[in-house]
Amino acid sequence: MTAQGTLEHLDRDRLAAIRTLADFEVLSRQFLSHSAYEYLEGGAGSGLTAMRNRASFDQISLMPRFLVDVSRLDTSMTLLGRRHDFPVLLAPTGYHKLMHPDGELATVCGAQMSGATLVAACFATVPYEDMRAASTQPLWFQLYIQEDREFTKELVERVVEAGVEAICVCVDVPVNGPRDRELRAGFRLPDGVFRSNLIGLGEDLAGGAHRPSGRNIYSATHAANVTWKDIEWLRALTPKPLLLKGILHPHDAALAVALGCDGVIVSNHGGRSLDTVVPTMRALPGVLDRIGGRVPVLVDGGVRRGVDIFKALARGATAVLVGRPYLHGLAVGGGQGVARVVEILRTELEMTMGLIGCRSVAEISRRFLVQ
Amino acid sequence: MTAQGTLEHLDRDRLAAIRTLADFEVLSRQFLSHSAYEYLEGGAGSGLTAMRNRASFDQISLMPRFLVDVSRLDTSMTLLGRRHDFPVLLAPTGYHKLMHPDGELATVCGAQMSGATLVAACFATVPYEDMRAASTQPLWFQLYIQEDREFTKELVERVVEAGVEAICVCVDVPVNGPRDRELRAGFRLPDGVFRSNLIGLGEDLAGGAHRPSGRNIYSATHAANVTWKDIEWLRALTPKPLLLKGILHPHDAALAVALGCDGVIVSNHGGRSLDTVVPTMRALPGVLDRIGGRVPVLVDGGVRRGVDIFKALARGATAVLVGRPYLHGLAVGGGQGVARVVEILRTELEMTMGLIGCRSVAEISRRFLVQ
Amino acid sequence: MTAQGTLEHLDRDRLAAIRTLADFEVLSRQFLSHSAYEYLEGGAGSGLTAMRNRASFDQISLMPRFLVDVSRLDTSMTLLGRRHDFPVLLAPTGYHKLMHPDGELATVCGAQMSGATLVAACFATVPYEDMRAASTQPLWFQLYIQEDREFTKELVERVVEAGVEAICVCVDVPVNGPRDRELRAGFRLPDGVFRSNLIGLGEDLAGGAHRPSGRNIYSATHAANVTWKDIEWLRALTPKPLLLKGILHPHDAALAVALGCDGVIVSNHGGRSLDTVVPTMRALPGVLDRIGGRVPVLVDGGVRRGVDIFKALARGATAVLVGRPYLHGLAVGGGQGVARVVEILRTELEMTMGLIGCRSVAEISRRFLVQ
Amino acid sequence: MTAQGTLEHLDRDRLAAIRTLADFEVLSRQFLSHSAYEYLEGGAGSGLTAMRNRASFDQISLMPRFLVDVSRLDTSMTLLGRRHDFPVLLAPTGYHKLMHPDGELATVCGAQMSGATLVAACFATVPYEDMRAASTQPLWFQLYIQEDREFTKELVERVVEAGVEAICVCVDVPVNGPRDRELRAGFRLPDGVFRSNLIGLGEDLAGGAHRPSGRNIYSATHAANVTWKDIEWLRALTPKPLLLKGILHPHDAALAVALGCDGVIVSNHGGRSLDTVVPTMRALPGVLDRIGGRVPVLVDGGVRRGVDIFKALARGATAVLVGRPYLHGLAVGGGQGVARVVEILRTELEMTMGLIGCRSVAEISRRFLVQ
Repeated sequence: MTAQGTLEHLDRDRLAAIRTLADFEVLSRQFLSHSAYEYLEGGAGSGLTAMRNRASFDQISLMPRFLVDVSRLDTSMTLLGRRHDFPVLLAPTGYHKLMHPDGELATVCGAQMSGATLVAACFATVPYEDMRAASTQPLWFQLYIQEDREFTKELVERVVEAGVEAICVCVDVPVNGPRDRELRAGFRLPDGVFRSNLIGLGEDLAGGAHRPSGRNIYSATHAANVTWKDIEWLRALTPKPLLLKGILHPHDAALAVALGCDGVIVSNHGGRSLDTVVPTMRALPGVLDRIGGRVPVLVDGGVRRGVDIFKALARGATAVLVGRPYLHGLAVGGGQGVARVVEILRTELEMTMGLIGCRSVAEISRRFLVQ
Repeated sequence: MTAQGTLEHLDRDRLAAIRTLADFEVLSRQFLSHSAYEYLEGGAGSGLTAMRNRASFDQISLMPRFLVDVSRLDTSMTLLGRRHDFPVLLAPTGYHKLMHPDGELATVCGAQMSGATLVAACFATVPYEDMRAASTQPLWFQLYIQEDREFTKELVERVVEAGVEAICVCVDVPVNGPRDRELRAGFRLPDGVFRSNLIGLGEDLAGGAHRPSGRNIYSATHAANVTWKDIEWLRALTPKPLLLKGILHPHDAALAVALGCDGVIVSNHGGRSLDTVVPTMRALPGVLDRIGGRVPVLVDGGVRRGVDIFKALARGATAVLVGRPYLHGLAVGGGQGVARVVEILRTELEMTMGLIGCRSVAEISRRFLVQ
Repeated sequence: MTAQGTLEHLDRDRLAAIRTLADFEVLSRQFLSHSAYEYLEGGAGSGLTAMRNRASFDQISLMPRFLVDVSRLDTSMTLLGRRHDFPVLLAPTGYHKLMHPDGELATVCGAQMSGATLVAACFATVPYEDMRAASTQPLWFQLYIQEDREFTKELVERVVEAGVEAICVCVDVPVNGPRDRELRAGFRLPDGVFRSNLIGLGEDLAGGAHRPSGRNIYSATHAANVTWKDIEWLRALTPKPLLLKGILHPHDAALAVALGCDGVIVSNHGGRSLDTVVPTMRALPGVLDRIGGRVPVLVDGGVRRGVDIFKALARGATAVLVGRPYLHGLAVGGGQGVARVVEILRTELEMTMGLIGCRSVAEISRRFLVQ
Repeated sequence: MTAQGTLEHLDRDRLAAIRTLADFEVLSRQFLSHSAYEYLEGGAGSGLTAMRNRASFDQISLMPRFLVDVSRLDTSMTLLGRRHDFPVLLAPTGYHKLMHPDGELATVCGAQMSGATLVAACFATVPYEDMRAASTQPLWFQLYIQEDREFTKELVERVVEAGVEAICVCVDVPVNGPRDRELRAGFRLPDGVFRSNLIGLGEDLAGGAHRPSGRNIYSATHAANVTWKDIEWLRALTPKPLLLKGILHPHDAALAVALGCDGVIVSNHGGRSLDTVVPTMRALPGVLDRIGGRVPVLVDGGVRRGVDIFKALARGATAVLVGRPYLHGLAVGGGQGVARVVEILRTELEMTMGLIGCRSVAEISRRFLVQ
């Protein structure tokens, strides 16, 4: 149930010949066990939200302007005080050892090659400290607040000490969701694959079952009793930038700002938590309106092309995150695969900007969208 | 044309491994004769209403709230003065012996195991009294008013005497409908399968042809001359709770309340009576508006996931009924199969409530729906 | 290219086992040559109008009322002063000898058996007089005004003399249309099949090529220079009821009434003349509004179920016409097949009325439609 | 990678038997190498804009008028002071030697046979002068302004000297776009196929790679730094009619007129530049409104039937251009194939006019469209 290992990962030249993220997605299937593939690709329920995340990008029509000098294009943006070469981050995703034997170490390596900022997952199969040490680039951390708040505090202290740039608190999975494909495939963590950051919570949590069986909807690693009080507590715990990930309702976004959060990520967990929950691009405007520019708003879910990034920014997002796509790259080509996926997105964003008559990220705006 | 009997019904462990109602539906085909399967699955005409019942659930987008303590979830609700553990009833459906050799006795057993309230069908293949005796749980009864009103009166008296909790009068099939799939499959009741509750109406009615041939649209077991006068008469006949099932028009709902009915069930007979009739979730708001909370409003048609139950309640229904899904369970695993279907729905409803930030049925409301 | 004759037509018992018009359509393929089938089934261009004619019926949702005594249903209506048992006429369609060796004689026979009024086609392969003689029922006639107006006058005089009940002037095919499927199949009239009503127009017209080759869009049998002056002339020619068939624009409908026509038929020639022309059910309201009840308005295009008839009448039509469906019946079972098709439609209309709570055609109205 | 040459091109009789452009499209596949076919058929990205160009035609419903004398139809129109027999031009498209060994010489020949005006492509594989010499008809020229403006000036002078009728400046491809299908097929120009008009720009440009590899989005033959200043410069360079091709935004259209351009072509490069850019028929009204009739507005993208031409003109365009369709004709039958494609479009336009009751191009208007 780990990466199958029967196929050699593709080398740089063969990766360069892959032209779209869709091609990576198709290829990745050959490099993954059935259950890992189902875990990766599956959404909640019938996958309607996952599908609608994509559809909501495709439904936006663009209105280009021409005869603008686009011989120099600038895709850089500034986020939390630091300049990024392009407005794409790598979303936190669990269990990279299912995709590649080196797991998150390969991912960090790919992020470094491509210049993308990675959000290390709470459920990484390599400890945050090791990921941090493997790269000279900033590294964010995704936190699931654990039932054991003391452990949670220590975990935060660990990543702060290791030099985390920002912490994303994932708020949208208080209980298990109906992930049909994963359940049908009987997905569980294979031997030797651990949630490395959670060792110490009790040996039973470090490996083994991904979720409890039967009618129990509660997970040992997703606390169901987290509230805004916990966000206040966390805010007091560290001065590091804090973002809430999974926000959809404008009022939740407003509360996050009121409690001192430094940003929100509009997300529905890639359509993996609750089916038919609102697509992120449809939720984005309400959140932006309520926040009024006080903190940056990021968005994820369904970004597969450079033109999608452009649309998210035109609607007001500061940056996007991609999840599944870089895992496809990881499966197909390890760190080099991750880097190639990012390169494609970046090139396609430049193509989009050139073809729409927009020279810099600052110029991206609603005027390029058909109303 | 009875249940094929060639396959052993699945035992409890194998049932526990089935994760969705869709999986039960697919599996059930192997346990049913062709004509029973067509009878069960078929809708009226081209099946557009059956399809749109489902689609109208899927089209509703949800807007979750997070950072709410969902470590204790309460799915219970009160209906007609009694507490139900969860807001799902088992709809009246005919001819269970086509699905399982034990017929309705298996169903009653499954209902008891899962704690769900069953509405015994008028066209059950086991007499109401036997069903009643097989369970300690409340048991409702579905009534088709017969051409012979005296017989109808005796039937009501029988179920009241047996201890019925409530009576649902099915008002939406005064004549036969164009059930293409059933007609093409040449469906008829097999030897030894009887409408047990109707014995005494004449031997010719107890078994044999399901419907008359030729151009005759009238059925011996669905009176075409039932009117509101009959509802008045029935109301006077017994003080037991009386609900009308099949209501779609707000004015019909208002009449039901005016005549003293205790509830209405918004239903289009699972899309089995008249094709392109309005989907139930689309008819529900008009009925609710007109009734203004004077009696509970239930809804059925297309409920296949926990999230559908949530949506129906968020729109204002007190509870939902499911029909075909528990018959799939009955076909696959007898009473245990029925119980597993209910368990899945209940678990998925809890997942939905947890993932949307809603702690109890009382908290379910329109504010979780994208307008 | 005539009816293949390799299959025996189905007898009455086997016809009675066919339950829907869709089943007749599928079956008919086995009884027809490829080119005849393509001629019959094909629409103009990509068939979008033919498809949308159907879709516009399916998109209308119905809102039934219950607890109405429907034990006596009356489907009769009055048209041009005569009572019809049900509101369905058989539309004029050409070349019945392609469907059955007896051609229009079989059709007339089927119409008589079922009590439906047939509109004899201008391009019938049996002379109007012979059709008229084969039946005791009223028989309408469809007229294409010919380039040769004198011949046209004589043709009108012939059908009047034979006892025509009403004349429908087909106004919607002044030139040939792009009938892709027919063109690809190389459709032409086979030897021995003639436009019998047009003999005398010159031998070259009586048989042979269905349409000219090359870039010429003009047909020898559809005059391109017909105008409202010709309608005036025709009106003066005979006191028999005159209807215009093919009306879509409200202004054309108003002109028809102003010139003394006795009715209009909203039609797009079954989607066979110009692709993407407005579906008839979408054109119907505008025509009805403008006519304001001064003359009856009929509609055709896409009627395949009893519920479609109900919808057309609920929108305000006096009756519908069906074309392809009875030709499927003719191909499969000759006159008996025609009669069975009509019987199915009539039974389905009764089912619809019973299931929607509507006792007579007079009661059919917009209140049964979801707005 | 040139035309495969394994199949004989179809002769005139066999071409005459082809009845629709869709049939040509299907057939063309047999006459083309895989990579040429992918180059020709592919759109940008997932092909959504290409698909929506078509869909936006199909979605328009027509409202015909009847009883108009259509025995004489006039499809002619006047453009830039010259009468055209019909409102269809052949759009500039590159690399005709991929479709046929004679390349653009065959195309010119087909244009002459059919009376259609061809816009010679900047990236033709035959020099403009040779194309000009092969025909007695007017010949337009498509210009991509080159990085080397001096070369551009000389190119303009060359075509003016050769007797160009009008110059279309293509403004919508300042950088390479994400042409997935072309990229996957590894498309490059085969040996012996050159951009003949660009010889002199440096030997490396004349043949070889179609686009640079890696992350570079800039092409050696599409200058990225072209601005409205260059349009001013070009306007001053020659008094020949100048049109801008690729306009979508109303403001760009207004600027074109303000700078003295003689027309604009609403185009999204056949959906080949940026995916999800607005469909041309949806962009057309805004451009027309802003231009207010001061210069002619042409449109391309998705025209495949005569009825599409009618719709574009009814919405206000002066003429349409077709691209891929005549290349299908070229591949299947050389110049004769091009002529047959034009003939089909012209015949279908006449059919449309006849069937909708419109005698001349001047009469085509919005009143024939369902609002």
